[in-house]
Amino acid sequence: MKKTFVSDIVEKVGEEVTLFGWVSIRRDHGKLIFFDLRDSSGEVQAVALPNHEEAHAVADTIRPEWVISVVAKVNQRPEKMVNTEQALGHLELEALAIEVLSKAHELPFDKDSELNIDTYLNFLPLTLRTKRAQEIFKLQETLVETFRSTLKNERFTEFQAPAITGGDAEGGANVFKLEYFNDKFAYLTTSPQLYKQIMVGVYERVFTTPKAFRAESHATTRHLNEYSTLDFEMGFIGDHRDVMAMQERVVREYVTAVKEKHADTMKHFSIEVPQIPE
Amino acid sequence: MKKTFVSDIVEKVGEEVTLFGWVSIRRDHGKLIFFDLRDSSGEVQAVALPNHEEAHAVADTIRPEWVISVVAKVNQRPEKMVNTEQALGHLELEALAIEVLSKAHELPFDKDSELNIDTYLNFLPLTLRTKRAQEIFKLQETLVETFRSTLKNERFTEFQAPAITGGDAEGGANVFKLEYFNDKFAYLTTSPQLYKQIMVGVYERVFTTPKAFRAESHATTRHLNEYSTLDFEMGFIGDHRDVMAMQERVVREYVTAVKEKHADTMKHFSIEVPQIPE
Repeated sequence: MKKTFVSDIVEKVGEEVTLFGWVSIRRDHGKLIFFDLRDSSGEVQAVALPNHEEAHAVADTIRPEWVISVVAKVNQRPEKMVNTEQALGHLELEALAIEVLSKAHELPFDKDSELNIDTYLNFLPLTLRTKRAQEIFKLQETLVETFRSTLKNERFTEFQAPAITGGDAEGGANVFKLEYFNDKFAYLTTSPQLYKQIMVGVYERVFTTPKAFRAESHATTRHLNEYSTLDFEMGFIGDHRDVMAMQERVVREYVTAVKEKHADTMKHFSIEVPQIPE
Repeated sequence: MKKTFVSDIVEKVGEEVTLFGWVSIRRDHGKLIFFDLRDSSGEVQAVALPNHEEAHAVADTIRPEWVISVVAKVNQRPEKMVNTEQALGHLELEALAIEVLSKAHELPFDKDSELNIDTYLNFLPLTLRTKRAQEIFKLQETLVETFRSTLKNERFTEFQAPAITGGDAEGGANVFKLEYFNDKFAYLTTSPQLYKQIMVGVYERVFTTPKAFRAESHATTRHLNEYSTLDFEMGFIGDHRDVMAMQERVVREYVTAVKEKHADTMKHFSIEVPQIPE
């Protein structure tokens, strides 16, 4: 059985495909059972018709977040049934066979409901599956990628900065202390600063995207004790304006990449991407 | 003063340029003082002639690893003076003005000499500046980049796995324990395994390149307590052969990238890149 990704069904209208994914929603209309099937590439509506008896019987049991495989025919929807809000809203899967690969426990809450931050964090394996969370971390991925590609184009070299260190890097933040063999201690880096400066001596322009660790008890949910830092350092600057110009170049590329790849996300979050002045 | 990168002088023959970099070697022939200037893009020979008095006087003082800027005319070398071993061996800088930006201490040893591992590690800010070390870490960069780009093409999503955890991930390795606020303790992850599996539920195919930490006292120099791991996880596999096929795809791309980008390095290390069977 060759796996077809959901978004690839646009090229398979009229064909039989095998898809694997998660049940997002199920709507039981009695004879007709509808469910949305989601994989990493997208989401599409499927329908189990009574004439495909076995598929219909399985569709009757499935619940949100169950993992299934579906053998289905890809149908064009009649014009007045097209859902223009969805990328694949003009298509529908006619389920010929459904196999349950993994049942999910009954969900403790609807995964798209508004949650307080503690509940959200305690149930991350579930709450990350919302479209909202997926979009946030896809956007994070784009920013990290853009940081790297922009600096690579500016002749920077990427290196891997250490996390365990013999002492503090900057002195501006509290450090985490760890036991390091035979009653010795080591610390987690609060910044890759020292290592960047060493590597400027080697490669002139360098960047690294390691974790930084700060042992500070914060009062807000916007501070983290562990975070990924996007950090560059460059040699042979005239003054601070050269560094600012490079930083601006990175930010311009962020904005361009977000506009190009995440227009939908910006719409969902009602965010207007700022215009970049020339 | 607009900075010209060393490798860009090939397009500036006959022109005056300003370069910034490190003195690699200096050869004093009395009237003629030669030195190799190195930056992130390459290395080229420069000559200070007696008729440029000030430049000649400064060239007399400079030593290996001093950081300088040089205003120079880019000259084609006469045919019989061409060094075919060097990428820029057909060119030479005629130093018109030299400014010392930063002196280096007298080196504790020639930076290209064979060193025992302890000395090598104790002097990393210096020993990483050898061509050998630079090539090793440029190759490392290529492997990490290739890992990412190959998997991105296979619809994987990159995410940032945490380093601090409440307990051990796999149980197969000793963990580092750290003090985590008010007499509590936390641990450093020995693997991103748990987080990859959570993220497969979100994005189906994921990878991450975080640090892994193993608190084991090793007997060899080939083991590390902290290392960067290139880690992917994919859902909806038929069996282990699907994972092996993906891993093979990554390795094929490693070999191709190393062949394309690091032919020189392979020659320097006398490594023959393996043929990939079809």
